[in-house]
Amino acid sequence: MAIKAAVIGYGNIGRFAVEAVAAAKDMELAGIVRRRASGPLGDIPVATSIKELGDVDVALLCVPSRVVPMQVKELLALGINTVDSYDIHGEITSLRAELGPIARHHDSVAVISAGWDPGADSLIRNLLQFMAPGGITYTNFGPGMSMGHTVAVKAISGVKDAVSLTIPLGTGVHRRMVYVELEEGADFSQVKQAIQKDPYFVHDETHVFAVGDVNNLIDMGHGVVIERKGVAGKTHNQLFRWEMRITNPALTAQIMVAAARAAMRQESGCYTLIELPLVDFLPGEREDWISSLV
Amino acid sequence: MAIKAAVIGYGNIGRFAVEAVAAAKDMELAGIVRRRASGPLGDIPVATSIKELGDVDVALLCVPSRVVPMQVKELLALGINTVDSYDIHGEITSLRAELGPIARHHDSVAVISAGWDPGADSLIRNLLQFMAPGGITYTNFGPGMSMGHTVAVKAISGVKDAVSLTIPLGTGVHRRMVYVELEEGADFSQVKQAIQKDPYFVHDETHVFAVGDVNNLIDMGHGVVIERKGVAGKTHNQLFRWEMRITNPALTAQIMVAAARAAMRQESGCYTLIELPLVDFLPGEREDWISSLV
Repeated sequence: MAIKAAVIGYGNIGRFAVEAVAAAKDMELAGIVRRRASGPLGDIPVATSIKELGDVDVALLCVPSRVVPMQVKELLALGINTVDSYDIHGEITSLRAELGPIARHHDSVAVISAGWDPGADSLIRNLLQFMAPGGITYTNFGPGMSMGHTVAVKAISGVKDAVSLTIPLGTGVHRRMVYVELEEGADFSQVKQAIQKDPYFVHDETHVFAVGDVNNLIDMGHGVVIERKGVAGKTHNQLFRWEMRITNPALTAQIMVAAARAAMRQESGCYTLIELPLVDFLPGEREDWISSLV
Repeated sequence: MAIKAAVIGYGNIGRFAVEAVAAAKDMELAGIVRRRASGPLGDIPVATSIKELGDVDVALLCVPSRVVPMQVKELLALGINTVDSYDIHGEITSLRAELGPIARHHDSVAVISAGWDPGADSLIRNLLQFMAPGGITYTNFGPGMSMGHTVAVKAISGVKDAVSLTIPLGTGVHRRMVYVELEEGADFSQVKQAIQKDPYFVHDETHVFAVGDVNNLIDMGHGVVIERKGVAGKTHNQLFRWEMRITNPALTAQIMVAAARAAMRQESGCYTLIELPLVDFLPGEREDWISSLV
């Protein structure tokens, strides 16, 4: 029986989530939930409430992180499993503690923070930690667009549109390259100063440029390099490096689809990716993957 | 309460396993089991049977793969959890099927094939598979010594000592560099031909050299690069690369120690690494790791 998945939100990640569900042979798209009513998208049902979509096994929340906790709670209470890519790192532990009892009470499963960071990168950091318990792990992002930083720039007075790129300088240090489209009459040097003083930028090397059209600069490609040099047992100089160059929303959506599959295989509760067996993210029979991957 | 671990076998990996257990703050070394009687090693008890070592929670099998199945069965029947680095890829699924019922019957846990390949590399291949379900994963080993190939060369008539190095040529293709110390009167060209016709070498580009002393060439450093270019959802050209440069027996031993810890946290049964949550390989509290790694 195919897993019936709904996609909540039809922004950047939602569109890719619809594609990733369609590409998953063990899944069926129950429909899309949007805030505002609209007609079906091709043959995909669109609704303003998940209750209109019939039986749904698991919901993929492709909505901003700040609205994730409330929406997950509502879905879990309906007995629907959830997956999100909640990315407020400092709040993950408390969100997990809050959602766990709700999920167990309603016999549902929440998999939280299932994107690429937190998410896939968390798995790599966990792996490195036990392969070389002594040492330092550095996560180096980019080059690529940072959504959080871009939103922060757009909120600054005089900015019509903007994009903030993250450039890795190594050992977890990043440069910010900010491209702004100014509002008419706005003063570039004032805007630049406001950006460089913003909490999102004040600790990083930040360069600001005025451009005619920000849209010409948009490229969803992103990447990360995670490095660790550490000690295995008592042996030093063990070197590890993980690198990926990916289309940000496509990868996030793909990981969410895999996590949705894993959610179907867990006891009720709330989980981060490092708490789930990796084989549970794959379709089909465990034994087949053991013989082909192990 | 510290986990009481015993190390079975005191060869290459066994020595590093003793160090890795000593470095693990949540473990205590119950002792070493060797085939032949010997005195204690410093203050570490040495015995010819694990029964002489008192209470043991988990045994680390640092013995050749071919004797692993029999020894694991005996230990599981004693109610002792086991970890091994069984590396006969084609036999892992059937070993797992054989050990599972024995472990469940005796309420014990076996974690099998917990080295770097199979083991850590299996985890990476699993991760890549669900991040980009379409595509090809290549595992490129080396440069480093191959134990299996070295043993095959040593079995050839006229060879006194040997070492076989694995050189990665990309896309999973490898060159073999074989260094042999000849027995007196042996003919180099005959030895060379025998090596190149051996099943271990016949399919690979193989170069053979005669040297005076093989020991001068020994370096336990090894490495791997795992690469995948694949499709996430319907988005192509997603690029992934995992690289490590490690001391082979030290990393193997470290992974076994982490897997021994994970074994203590599972329901009875037999598991490969991809079937276990990654956080279970780490000491201490799950919540602490979620807040620091996720």
